[in-house]
Amino acid sequence: MVVGIDMGGTSIKVGLVDEKGTVTEKFSLITKDYPEFSSFVAALADKVNPLKAKYDIKAVGIGCPNGNFYTGNIESAVNLPWHGTVPVARLVSEALSVPCRITNDANAAALGEMTYGAAVGLRDFIMITLGTGVGSGIVIDGRMVYGHDGFAGELGHVIVCPDGRLCGCGRKGCLEAYCSATGVARTAREFLAESSEPSSLRAVPSDAITSKDVFEAAVSGDALAKRVFDFTGEILGRALADFVTFSAPEAFVLFGGLARAGALLFDPVRESMERSLLPLWRGKVKVLPSQLPADDAAILGAASIAVQSL
Amino acid sequence: MVVGIDMGGTSIKVGLVDEKGTVTEKFSLITKDYPEFSSFVAALADKVNPLKAKYDIKAVGIGCPNGNFYTGNIESAVNLPWHGTVPVARLVSEALSVPCRITNDANAAALGEMTYGAAVGLRDFIMITLGTGVGSGIVIDGRMVYGHDGFAGELGHVIVCPDGRLCGCGRKGCLEAYCSATGVARTAREFLAESSEPSSLRAVPSDAITSKDVFEAAVSGDALAKRVFDFTGEILGRALADFVTFSAPEAFVLFGGLARAGALLFDPVRESMERSLLPLWRGKVKVLPSQLPADDAAILGAASIAVQSL
Repeated sequence: MVVGIDMGGTSIKVGLVDEKGTVTEKFSLITKDYPEFSSFVAALADKVNPLKAKYDIKAVGIGCPNGNFYTGNIESAVNLPWHGTVPVARLVSEALSVPCRITNDANAAALGEMTYGAAVGLRDFIMITLGTGVGSGIVIDGRMVYGHDGFAGELGHVIVCPDGRLCGCGRKGCLEAYCSATGVARTAREFLAESSEPSSLRAVPSDAITSKDVFEAAVSGDALAKRVFDFTGEILGRALADFVTFSAPEAFVLFGGLARAGALLFDPVRESMERSLLPLWRGKVKVLPSQLPADDAAILGAASIAVQSL
Repeated sequence: MVVGIDMGGTSIKVGLVDEKGTVTEKFSLITKDYPEFSSFVAALADKVNPLKAKYDIKAVGIGCPNGNFYTGNIESAVNLPWHGTVPVARLVSEALSVPCRITNDANAAALGEMTYGAAVGLRDFIMITLGTGVGSGIVIDGRMVYGHDGFAGELGHVIVCPDGRLCGCGRKGCLEAYCSATGVARTAREFLAESSEPSSLRAVPSDAITSKDVFEAAVSGDALAKRVFDFTGEILGRALADFVTFSAPEAFVLFGGLARAGALLFDPVRESMERSLLPLWRGKVKVLPSQLPADDAAILGAASIAVQSL
């Protein structure tokens, strides 16, 4: 039995996970209730330590923004209330008296997919998380890639369009500026502004359009909304083809809100990737949807860091 | 003592290498003298087997185009006389009665750098070979990246310029079309055609311009030739910044003819890479020249595959 903790800017989800990947107990805490990390750790210990009477808890895994596997620290995560460097793994391990490993959210998702989901049995794959931002976790020969400094796998910040859209990182043309949920909404606003083509999205105030609105319009047959997904898939597919030249993965696993758009996104992604691949790899690289249950995915991802460390 | 074999379209260089990386004996064969692979193996055995009386030969390593580490086969190498799939490792191992490992040229160069050159002691680095084409060898956590199929590390075929120059692979805009020796000559021809700016390169027939001509002109102070290196370095630097997001390497090692251009290439590469990096990595990633002796680099690279396998 291991504990998986998904630490986000809004909430911190905690679950007990058994060997089969079943979440047997879970609870969540509101991140902003804990302005000091020590108060969060105390609350966590109050909840988890009593469970030890019932369960044999072996380890804790935490997925968190800017979580560094090597140091066990969160380093300057902008969405969390704790500033500077926080020795998360050490403090949690001390409070719960079991080993604790941490990594960033996307790496946790990749480990979760490898342990319980779409990547079981795969030794070479790349996880792409398509949420508010674009993250990635890279597995080569069965091992997570952390890189020299623990921050490898920032594929959301590959430049796909030189001098393109301004990205949150301060640079221009990043994959994340196009293929995240916010990128999809931005593309919709651009398409709407560029023409007077009729679209059900014109009923939504431009600033308020979300990727969910675009998805629902596309599902209802809205041509402009469908083109937004085609455009997003075209750019993502080209990027995936470039990623293949790096580590020659057997598959990509797409995870997160946008990945739930199904064929609307997967069809143009696969078509664009195939067209862009070196001939050597055509027809050989799979693009798979995540197979983690949406509600428990983040907890399972975090739990799998603990499993991998045992 | 190991044998390193560098198999190219023109010649096959063979060397005996000791533990310190000294090439104690070497000879070469003319590739086209051996239209059948079996005749090459027989010639190799005739030369190497008598040396066993004098040296304790433990293994053979071969660096060759399209050499697959997993299968030990060369698969459809266009520059070699042997067509289809050739079981190189098995046939050479049988003829010399020692283990034989093969990999592609760029991976061999990376292993050579790690064993004897600029990357000794580095666990995360990427080798970029700038020759007639652009190749790469990726080392993560001390291990060569071969990928699912053995063909990982084709970074010369990342698309750096969508819809850009036609590449030898049939696609458009590959790094290789810009940052190889042939790419440099092509850039020079383009720059000469686009303006009437004076340049010593105008004395060379346009079709005959080589990267060496451009290098010599730049060293002599030719402004247009210098701009060719600035342009090449700008594109390579941006590509390196993208590669950092993948595996967060400690360093890049540049190898091959173009890398010998020194500051003419390294200055713009470093400047462009720094400008393009995510802030997290600025000032942290080294760009190093190869430290293998030019004459023996390929043999040392091949020998290091044998060393790594022991």
